[in-house]
Amino acid sequence: MIKIYEKIKKIILEAGEILKKSQNETFQINTKKVDYDLVTEYDFRIQKFLIEKFKIIMPEVEVFAEEANFDKKPNSKKYWVIDPIDGTVNFSKGIPEYCISVAYVEDDEPIMGFVYAPMMNLFYNAKKNEGAYLNDKKIVPNWSKNLKNSIITLGNKRGKTHEYIKQLEEEVMRIRLFGTAALQICYVASGYCDAFISLRSNPWDVAASHLILKEAGGIVINYKNEDMNIFSKKGLYTNENIRNELLNKTEEMIK
Amino acid sequence: MIKIYEKIKKIILEAGEILKKSQNETFQINTKKVDYDLVTEYDFRIQKFLIEKFKIIMPEVEVFAEEANFDKKPNSKKYWVIDPIDGTVNFSKGIPEYCISVAYVEDDEPIMGFVYAPMMNLFYNAKKNEGAYLNDKKIVPNWSKNLKNSIITLGNKRGKTHEYIKQLEEEVMRIRLFGTAALQICYVASGYCDAFISLRSNPWDVAASHLILKEAGGIVINYKNEDMNIFSKKGLYTNENIRNELLNKTEEMIK
Repeated sequence: MIKIYEKIKKIILEAGEILKKSQNETFQINTKKVDYDLVTEYDFRIQKFLIEKFKIIMPEVEVFAEEANFDKKPNSKKYWVIDPIDGTVNFSKGIPEYCISVAYVEDDEPIMGFVYAPMMNLFYNAKKNEGAYLNDKKIVPNWSKNLKNSIITLGNKRGKTHEYIKQLEEEVMRIRLFGTAALQICYVASGYCDAFISLRSNPWDVAASHLILKEAGGIVINYKNEDMNIFSKKGLYTNENIRNELLNKTEEMIK
Repeated sequence: MIKIYEKIKKIILEAGEILKKSQNETFQINTKKVDYDLVTEYDFRIQKFLIEKFKIIMPEVEVFAEEANFDKKPNSKKYWVIDPIDGTVNFSKGIPEYCISVAYVEDDEPIMGFVYAPMMNLFYNAKKNEGAYLNDKKIVPNWSKNLKNSIITLGNKRGKTHEYIKQLEEEVMRIRLFGTAALQICYVASGYCDAFISLRSNPWDVAASHLILKEAGGIVINYKNEDMNIFSKKGLYTNENIRNELLNKTEEMIK
């Protein structure tokens, strides 16, 4: 497993190099179902690159990924969950805050997770029961002791985001919108932030960072204070220090 | 002037190294006038470091800086405007999005501007009438053609931020809150974002990036569509593509 793990890491680092180089080029950007949702040629290129490389090292493992042809959950026990670029809108404009997210899943539970933000030199990874790492250093997060001193990040729900901010902005230290769910959950894992509130996430946005956060000692819960899996659309990626305070503020907000 | 310019750059890079190293340490964090506004020992250390070094290369130039003892505008013709850490709350938690901001000002107008985000390897600089640079490469921003396709960043006005987001979130592609005014204005300069809306900025937050944005071809205007100087508390850091559309959306919002 160690060898496989290192191989996956190398493949993701290579994919990151491709993305870094793309910053000096013009590339194709298209809209998806709605004209404020984008996909670039690099979303497809990176997805293809990762799938091809992963097929070589683990040929039997199916793929569940954001972009076309792979966006249905496989029926198999083992599969990859891949977001080639989480934060595509940021990426499309040159904003450094985007990442590659890869999880290896068994029985719908992430066993290995990798999140790499190449422009920021942040490589997060975790194996189940073996802790979480940032740039090869074990993460020991130092979360704020209470909600008042917390930094909260949010997902995006067009036309509704301001309502969540209204409820929270005077209750916390700051609210941030970095524009990538996977990286924002990793920011919680490393103690940079204290919670990420997902409003409509997909498995490829959260599968890898779900594991990374839990391995760092964090919690992933819904608004009823129950553990969530990687298929849950909305909930809290946070930590025990503010579990109750944050639930009190959010349970009425988000049904 | 070229020699001086290179010397300033070197000093700021050195200050960035000090900040990078601080990430592995525990350091002192205090609250300012209100308990959601922070200052760290590194704000003072970097300010002191910069002032001492600048005194050597330009002994006659006064200092106007965010932290204690230098926070009154000098009466002199020539002065520095320094924010040792813009995005102190981010910095205090380990979030990479923070920067050092330094402007050299004559007759209240920035002549040289430097913004360095050490954790993100972004070094922006500009000299008046000589263009703007990011990591030594001349900036040629590629802004979105209209508001609908724009990414807008905002400052922070506790308890009120959600109102601006409410007005804008369905009119633009995305809203981002990165938590540092200076860097967010530079993101506009490099075309990563299309506008930064300042809600209560201080000269040290904006002086350097004001020049950088203008030298990149951007505009700095108030809600009456008039040019702003570095002392204006609120306004738009944007570009001609969306000047009118953005003014239409904001003039009623912000009095």
